[in-house]
Amino acid sequence: MVKAVAVITVSDSCFKDNSKDTSGPALAEFVKKLFPEANLHTIIIPDEKEIIERELKYFCESNLDLILTTGGTGFSSRDVTPEATKAIIHKEVPAITVAITIESLKKTPMAMLSRSVAGIRDKTLIINFPGSKKAVTECFEIVKPVLPHAVALIADEMSEVRTIHD
Amino acid sequence: MVKAVAVITVSDSCFKDNSKDTSGPALAEFVKKLFPEANLHTIIIPDEKEIIERELKYFCESNLDLILTTGGTGFSSRDVTPEATKAIIHKEVPAITVAITIESLKKTPMAMLSRSVAGIRDKTLIINFPGSKKAVTECFEIVKPVLPHAVALIADEMSEVRTIHD
Amino acid sequence: MVKAVAVITVSDSCFKDNSKDTSGPALAEFVKKLFPEANLHTIIIPDEKEIIERELKYFCESNLDLILTTGGTGFSSRDVTPEATKAIIHKEVPAITVAITIESLKKTPMAMLSRSVAGIRDKTLIINFPGSKKAVTECFEIVKPVLPHAVALIADEMSEVRTIHD
Ligand code: NA
Repeated sequence: MVKAVAVITVSDSCFKDNSKDTSGPALAEFVKKLFPEANLHTIIIPDEKEIIERELKYFCESNLDLILTTGGTGFSSRDVTPEATKAIIHKEVPAITVAITIESLKKTPMAMLSRSVAGIRDKTLIINFPGSKKAVTECFEIVKPVLPHAVALIADEMSEVRTIHD
Repeated sequence: MVKAVAVITVSDSCFKDNSKDTSGPALAEFVKKLFPEANLHTIIIPDEKEIIERELKYFCESNLDLILTTGGTGFSSRDVTPEATKAIIHKEVPAITVAITIESLKKTPMAMLSRSVAGIRDKTLIINFPGSKKAVTECFEIVKPVLPHAVALIADEMSEVRTIHD
Repeated sequence: MVKAVAVITVSDSCFKDNSKDTSGPALAEFVKKLFPEANLHTIIIPDEKEIIERELKYFCESNLDLILTTGGTGFSSRDVTPEATKAIIHKEVPAITVAITIESLKKTPMAMLSRSVAGIRDKTLIINFPGSKKAVTECFEIVKPVLPHAVALIADEMSEVRTIHD
């Protein structure tokens, strides 16, 4: 059961002018559709490593099941979402980002330029998405099939071995 | 020449009841077939990070060529095999786990939920596999073609440049 | 605009006998063709982690846009280019190496044995390639479509969101 989810938009420009945020609202809609019963938190923060880390930790301590970020995964000097995420996760989940890369590369070689990270802190799964509506739409579609199962496993609601591999 | 290999089953439940271990014996059979002349060590340990690290280090100090682990690569709080492996390797080998992810994703999106790591400590190659017979069967098949060569390269029995790329 | 690029050959044997270096000159030719207006620096250094780190840092401080290394990415004990690279980058770019792995695996499973890393230090993009002419030819072809854009993004010459994803 997915009880609570956060969608965090990481973007200097959206932080200054919330109306510019198109990827956060899109992601929020996808979450509502997949987990209609879940509590959904949305927030817009600037591209500041310490602020991103603080918000991620805060939501993990609030026992959220899932945090999806959008933005700050690119190559410009202000893009630090992956670094903030890596700094606070306890376990990395590289296969999620590899799956996203595989699928995204089928559409454009520019997928090489996303530095998204996925990982687990305590009982919360965190996945970075790029900062556009198009990118979050494509990336959410890729991870959607495993999200309910992933959250259940982290919550220790089922045995990994029996459910995943047999 | 592969002289010695260890298969380590990492699982609380198999540690309590060895008869439950199906992935370890399956993996041991694959190793015997590929390296019939090698000394094979098998062991079952619980999902304890310090114990996993200690056993990995012990086998590396014993000059093993290859260590294959099964279990503890998932999302539950007790799954810490990748973290223990990362803590003791000197070099990461991400392309091995990417290759496993690519092939496994062709069968099921749940492949996103394996957090397996591969790496080198001193002269020993270490690869994590998930904790089911089905998963180790599929994953071993993927890495099998490169194992003899990989071990020979680590042992400095041949030159990388000449043998891999030309 | 790509103004300055370095090609670093990392190889004990090429360092002793420069005439043995075939991958460095090949890579230099590809760079000249793609960025004819750029200043190109080439250097051959031994497989020493500290020397590799020092040279990478030196070129980053010299405001180079791009550093391509060839060699030292394999499994032998002297292969430490990825470790030196990881030690000095500020941001990892795993999707570049995943893209290389995906394409290289289509040709040979031995692609699992390359441990190449890509990352960003300050305003410089660094990509490791294996140490053969064949490998650098194939790998350069894979990353070529994104190099101009990647360098422009790092230089903050354009907005990530608008250009990559829309
Ligand atoms: Na397990």
